[in-house]
Amino acid sequence: MSAAAPADDDAQLREETLVSEQAYRGAFLDVRRDQIRLPDGGTAQREYIVHPGAVMIVPLLDDGRLVIERQWRYPLARVMTEFPAGKLEAGEPPLHCAIRELIEETGYRATEWARAGILHNAIAYSNEGIEVWFARGLTLGERQLDVGEFLEVDSASLDELQQMARRGELTDAKTLIGMHWLENWRTGRWTLDWHAVP
Amino acid sequence: MSAAAPADDDAQLREETLVSEQAYRGAFLDVRRDQIRLPDGGTAQREYIVHPGAVMIVPLLDDGRLVIERQWRYPLARVMTEFPAGKLEAGEPPLHCAIRELIEETGYRATEWARAGILHNAIAYSNEGIEVWFARGLTLGERQLDVGEFLEVDSASLDELQQMARRGELTDAKTLIGMHWLENWRTGRWTLDWHAVP
Repeated sequence: MSAAAPADDDAQLREETLVSEQAYRGAFLDVRRDQIRLPDGGTAQREYIVHPGAVMIVPLLDDGRLVIERQWRYPLARVMTEFPAGKLEAGEPPLHCAIRELIEETGYRATEWARAGILHNAIAYSNEGIEVWFARGLTLGERQLDVGEFLEVDSASLDELQQMARRGELTDAKTLIGMHWLENWRTGRWTLDWHAVP
Repeated sequence: MSAAAPADDDAQLREETLVSEQAYRGAFLDVRRDQIRLPDGGTAQREYIVHPGAVMIVPLLDDGRLVIERQWRYPLARVMTEFPAGKLEAGEPPLHCAIRELIEETGYRATEWARAGILHNAIAYSNEGIEVWFARGLTLGERQLDVGEFLEVDSASLDELQQMARRGELTDAKTLIGMHWLENWRTGRWTLDWHAVP
């Protein structure tokens, strides 16, 4: 592949905003509808969700297993197996969100954290980015689920999760990517920069 | 992890639909707002996108490199590096969609196809599932982009894509999962069931 092109080189692909309007504002979803200018000067419309961003935590137990959750996902009408995750509150630093969500949903606190990266999960119609954080040095306390939040906490080895993925029983995109990062870290190909968090 | 629980065991997590309504219907996005019953008998609201489903193609060139695209993604206001992908048309079988999108966007036709699996990329607010298909035996012809569609076609080795991912230059979730599947297939851990397509 050719080296990453500088931003100026993307003029032949770039779309410019002409008008942006609120198409729908619900309690949860913020939908925009923009008129845009295409690279060839033509115009088109883009509809998309404005999202505050989210974090996912890959929680490593001392015995090498991972903390996972089972949660009903209403749009899919089924229980999904996932790593813990949650949305950023307004102005919240991602690590703060990761620490908060891990305690709230699972009861675990970690002594060390490392930011692996970010993923973009629905680039055709959402600006959501999910930061991927690893946590270790876990100790279990009380979880503090939000009102109306129901989920089960379990643990699994990476190999068990890989088997589930291969069989089509684990299909959550962020969780699959967390597994990929974990595998690359464990084999030494990718590094993680761990920080103690008091 | 305990064995996958039978569906009846998920009653403690299950949410039931009480009322479903159209919250917004754009040219592109179909947004629903449902009143639901929680596992404890309480009620809540769920907003989500109804999506027709999509396919992604992992196109393997004879020399081992992959066909990739660079495309402006308006919600993120940047160019993303991705495997080819597209939405299912009404009633369209996923393999038909995969063959069609690969030709339209890249000009490549494949002699062999294999379905790897499905991923769910935005389970909190969309029912989208993206089927992952592998294609090989590629020959290049003319591409047939839709009106208003602008994208560049390139090729990269899996190692180059992994380096981009590690550096945070490749963050598209479906593409990262395609790379994960490819790696597992090449190392012999996961299998693909190839079919000749005339």
